[in-house]
Amino acid sequence: MDIALKEAKAAESRGEVPIGAVVVDANSGDIIAQAGNQTEADLDPTAHAEILAIRQAAQKLGSARLPECDLYVTLEPCTMCATAISFARIRRLYFGAYDSKGGGVDHGARFFTQPTCHHTPEVYGGIRERDCADLLKAFFAKKR
Amino acid sequence: MDIALKEAKAAESRGEVPIGAVVVDANSGDIIAQAGNQTEADLDPTAHAEILAIRQAAQKLGSARLPECDLYVTLEPCTMCATAISFARIRRLYFGAYDSKGGGVDHGARFFTQPTCHHTPEVYGGIRERDCADLLKAFFAKKR
Repeated sequence: MDIALKEAKAAESRGEVPIGAVVVDANSGDIIAQAGNQTEADLDPTAHAEILAIRQAAQKLGSARLPECDLYVTLEPCTMCATAISFARIRRLYFGAYDSKGGGVDHGARFFTQPTCHHTPEVYGGIRERDCADLLKAFFAKKR
Repeated sequence: MDIALKEAKAAESRGEVPIGAVVVDANSGDIIAQAGNQTEADLDPTAHAEILAIRQAAQKLGSARLPECDLYVTLEPCTMCATAISFARIRRLYFGAYDSKGGGVDHGARFFTQPTCHHTPEVYGGIRERDCADLLKAFFAKKR
């Protein structure tokens, strides 16, 4: 989660919402991919940190499915990212801050509980929650 | 929807699940982007036709938001794509076949009805439903 936080801070320095994600080999613990949010720079509404990290990892491992991978992300994934995590067959999801306004794991659609969800990772929320949330709060306070 | 169907057939000829999507200028009716499903070729679990078409359109128009655009897609979008459609601020969504197993608009998460959904397009389902569904049924029948 330290590296996800670094990616979040790097995103912030580029003028992006500070969210970072890391895909890790579930067996070795090696980092396979890491990314920060890039929706502004890429002019891409889908360029969330999780989507970018999953895409990179799939390229690197040569497979659209990543059952031997865990994902760390600083914020509760939105519904788009939760669905992508399910499609990618990610083993475990670790996230930092909870997102009552836009989250899709513990809020709103709660995608992993839906009958249309065909793979559910193990989910651990609230990891380094304070650090992850403070980064976002400070960012949005500056924006106002 | 004719062009979305052509994209779906082109996807099938590449060994992909036959789903196609087209982004259209809501005022002029001009096509801005069109894509077929490409998850196999790209080794990318997020490379659904809708995501690819939205990304292309955002690049072309130089904006991550597409409020003057409508999206045509041959199958009810999944929850990932429905969320991406909302993020992209698409004006109207026209889709062909309904998807009770994986859809996220009229099934499962019904994302546009969630409190975490902050933009809801106008939705018209069942456009050229038979043609769109037949293409998918034939594809999966061959696979078995």
